[in-house]
Amino acid sequence: MQLAMIEDKIIPAEKLDPAYLDRGIYFGDGVYEVMQSHKGKIFALEEHLQRFVDSLAAIQITGVDINQVRTRVLKAFETAAIPHAKIYFHITRGSAPRNHTWDADLKPNFFLTITELEDYTEQKTKGIALSTHPDWRWKRCDIKSLNLLANVLAMNNAAKKGCGEAILVDETGLITEGAGSAFFAVFAKTLQTSPLSANILPSITRMFVVKAAKNLGIEIIEKSFTPTQAASANELFIAVSTKDIVPAVKFDGHIIGNGKPGKYTKMLINEFQSYYDTAPDPQ
Amino acid sequence: MQLAMIEDKIIPAEKLDPAYLDRGIYFGDGVYEVMQSHKGKIFALEEHLQRFVDSLAAIQITGVDINQVRTRVLKAFETAAIPHAKIYFHITRGSAPRNHTWDADLKPNFFLTITELEDYTEQKTKGIALSTHPDWRWKRCDIKSLNLLANVLAMNNAAKKGCGEAILVDETGLITEGAGSAFFAVFAKTLQTSPLSANILPSITRMFVVKAAKNLGIEIIEKSFTPTQAASANELFIAVSTKDIVPAVKFDGHIIGNGKPGKYTKMLINEFQSYYDTAPDPQ
Repeated sequence: MQLAMIEDKIIPAEKLDPAYLDRGIYFGDGVYEVMQSHKGKIFALEEHLQRFVDSLAAIQITGVDINQVRTRVLKAFETAAIPHAKIYFHITRGSAPRNHTWDADLKPNFFLTITELEDYTEQKTKGIALSTHPDWRWKRCDIKSLNLLANVLAMNNAAKKGCGEAILVDETGLITEGAGSAFFAVFAKTLQTSPLSANILPSITRMFVVKAAKNLGIEIIEKSFTPTQAASANELFIAVSTKDIVPAVKFDGHIIGNGKPGKYTKMLINEFQSYYDTAPDPQ
Repeated sequence: MQLAMIEDKIIPAEKLDPAYLDRGIYFGDGVYEVMQSHKGKIFALEEHLQRFVDSLAAIQITGVDINQVRTRVLKAFETAAIPHAKIYFHITRGSAPRNHTWDADLKPNFFLTITELEDYTEQKTKGIALSTHPDWRWKRCDIKSLNLLANVLAMNNAAKKGCGEAILVDETGLITEGAGSAFFAVFAKTLQTSPLSANILPSITRMFVVKAAKNLGIEIIEKSFTPTQAASANELFIAVSTKDIVPAVKFDGHIIGNGKPGKYTKMLINEFQSYYDTAPDPQ
């Protein structure tokens, strides 16, 4: 590369900050994780690190020491000293002049941010509205990659309609999951969600919701369902790392149940809450 | 955001370079173009700018003055003074702490690079090998977005097999296009390629290939075909902005024709060449 230009400024190639050559920006060639901490403890750190290892392997980013990632996360978390924090980190394949294929000796880039966790009390007590959007995502949503434009467009579409999340619908008319969350419906006394597949993120929060349901004796059916079925559910909720369980009281304009968070959803929220208190101390 | 970390370095939020907050890296929330120049003239500049406008509109990035983009491209190109150049530029939605939904007042980020165009003479005279890969891309490949991880993985898979391009195959078993190119087959005396759709990039080079075929009196059929059909074609080639037409002489290990670039492909390469010489001067 001979020359770069940022806005109106021309920059000789050798003076360009490597951040502008990150394969993350050219291709979304990286993977990420988002976690929350509760009362000074990171929730499900090991589960998130394990998924991160899986995502790195799935896109063949090699040479990452997961122990170093853990050390960095803990060091940043300790420095930030925010009890209720949102922790985001990603690793991209590295910085190099733009070329689809990559050199084996590329050094991956690590980036992390820590933010005060928003207060989601109102969402959790009143419930949110949901709206559907075509699932435009790529076909490997089991990998938590930086290719999130489809998610962004769906969520912005939902926000414009006053909804807190977009529920994605595939070309066969079945719901896959939320644009940034797992999605659950309560039909009679059973809890239903899409089965894990190449197109569903193996959500850590989903895993804990399943655990909570089992502990409460609620039957779980892992089977996809349609927007029409969702609109007729007794209860709906989403599950996401930064908020755990958020009830949904409206779906594409239809009122769910009596328009308030349902009984099972509240039971699951309470059960989930207990997992925070029993989380192990950071290693 | 309170704190960031790059590799092992902890950085207060307010000291972080905005490049690290680019929505391009968090979400691939941007669109791009790649062009080549020939003997000091940018080829099909206006066509690329028009597609760029379409891509920006499709993902609702507003507030971009395309005349300013043109001015920047021409200024950088003039400064670089490289007669045969590869010109890459992208615009992302802007820099902000990570949040899927965006603020309407976000200022888009412009970035451009100019590189000496590689010499593709050998590829063009000898032809390249192709291999197939599942089309894992998102469902709006008509938008030239920065979500390119599926393309990257497919092209790297092809490179490992000694192939110059990956040909993507959708879940119905039909070829969509190349991971970084349009794809054409010659069957008897007709030229065949996938029809434009929500999942095919409206390639500028494809447009000129179609024009070249018409000028040469070659019939064009816009209809998808399978890898088995491709392997039995008389000729195959890819079309891409930086190389125009590159013959393919191997497809998933099958020798195409007599293993050398075919008659129609060579005719189209020659016809295409004439378009460079008649390209208008930069405005």
